[in-house]
Amino acid sequence: MGKGLFITVEGPEGAGKTTVLKMLTEELKDEGYPIVYTREPGGIPIAEKIREIILDKNHTEMDPKTEALLYAAARRQHLVEKIIPEINKGNLVLCDRFIDASIVYQGYARGIGMDSVYMINEFAVENVMPDLTVYFDIEPETGLRRIHQHRETELNRLDLEDVQFHRRVREGYILLLRQYPDRMKKIDANQPLDAVKRDVKQLVTDYFQMRSFPNN
Amino acid sequence: MGKGLFITVEGPEGAGKTTVLKMLTEELKDEGYPIVYTREPGGIPIAEKIREIILDKNHTEMDPKTEALLYAAARRQHLVEKIIPEINKGNLVLCDRFIDASIVYQGYARGIGMDSVYMINEFAVENVMPDLTVYFDIEPETGLRRIHQHRETELNRLDLEDVQFHRRVREGYILLLRQYPDRMKKIDANQPLDAVKRDVKQLVTDYFQMRSFPNN
Repeated sequence: MGKGLFITVEGPEGAGKTTVLKMLTEELKDEGYPIVYTREPGGIPIAEKIREIILDKNHTEMDPKTEALLYAAARRQHLVEKIIPEINKGNLVLCDRFIDASIVYQGYARGIGMDSVYMINEFAVENVMPDLTVYFDIEPETGLRRIHQHRETELNRLDLEDVQFHRRVREGYILLLRQYPDRMKKIDANQPLDAVKRDVKQLVTDYFQMRSFPNN
Repeated sequence: MGKGLFITVEGPEGAGKTTVLKMLTEELKDEGYPIVYTREPGGIPIAEKIREIILDKNHTEMDPKTEALLYAAARRQHLVEKIIPEINKGNLVLCDRFIDASIVYQGYARGIGMDSVYMINEFAVENVMPDLTVYFDIEPETGLRRIHQHRETELNRLDLEDVQFHRRVREGYILLLRQYPDRMKKIDANQPLDAVKRDVKQLVTDYFQMRSFPNN
C-alpha cells in the first residue's frame, strides 16, 4: 500500500456520523492534514449505477445475497478508482462506512452469515483493509430518537421493530470490535455531537501521530 | 432441491451452443420432456440491469473483480427468480452457461484465480449446483473460423491473439472436467452441428433415464 492512511467510520443511522465527519474534515483540513472524505458510491459512475439498482424501490424481489454481491461490486470499484489512488498520493482517506457495514447489516442483522459476507468482501478489497476503523456506538433508542427528532409523537409499533433491528446491528458491531481490537476503536456516540467530534478528533490525530503522520 | 433437474451447457464462442440448444429444446419438447431453456440474464429485470452495467461500452475502467461480482449477482437473481422455481415445478432446466463460465473466463483466462471466483459464485448459488454440465469442446482455430465464417480473409493478428485467449479458455474448462468428472461431460463440438446435437441429445436423454426422468 501507498504512503497515505485509510480510516473508515462505522455505525448505525442516527449515530451522527455524517454531521461529525463533515465538521471534522473541515477542521483537520484547516490544521493542514491532507484529508479526503468519501463514501460509497463516491461519484464513481459504475458504483453509482450499481447503487441505483440496489436502491430502486421497484426491486422488491431482490434477494439478500444479490444485494450483498452488488454492495461488494460497488465497493470494489470505489476502492480501485478513488480510495487507492488517494492513498497512493499520500492522503488521509476518511471513508464513511466500508466492509464492516456489510458484515454487520447483511451478514449479521439480515442473517446471511458474517463469515460468508466477509469472504465476498475480502475478494472485493483484497489486501486494502482500513488502517483504523472508528465505530460510533449508540443506544438503539437514542439513535432512533435522533432520526425522528422532528416528530412529536411517541415511538410507534414500526419504530419498536426498528429498535430490534438496531439492537442486532449493535450486537454485530460489538462482535467485530472483539474480533479486530487493534483496528477498531469505539466512540461513545450517545454524547452531544460536539463531544463526539472532539473524541473522534482525539482518536484520529493520536493515530496519525503514532503512524508518524503530522500535519504539515 | 425440487423434483426437476438442472442441466448447464458450457463452452467458448463459436462452439455452436446456442444453435444446438435451440434445436435440441424443440425436439425434446416435441418428445414430451418438460424442458425449459434459459440463459442469464433471462428476462429477470434486476439481472438485465446488472448485465447492462457489465456490457456498457463506456465502462472501460471496470475492474475485473467488479465484473466478477456483478456476474455473480446477476446469476444469483436469475437462479432465485427463474431456475429454482422451474426446478421446483418438476421441469428440466437447460441453462446456457452458468458458474463454470465465470470460473474459466474470469478466474482462469483473465487471471483472477479459479478458487476465488469459485468462492464468490458458491456464495451466489449456495447448494444449487448443476446436476449435469455438458461441455462443448472445440479446437480454438475451428471455433474462431466458425465465428468468422462470413469473412473471406485469412485470420489476422487480432484473431491470433484471440486464438491464445481461446486456448486459455479451453485449458480452464479441461481443468474443471478433471475436477468434476461426475458432473461434467465433454462433447466433441468440432463435428458438424447436426452430429453435435445428436451427441448432446444422447447424453442428456441417457441422463434423464438414469435419473428416472422419462418423457411423458
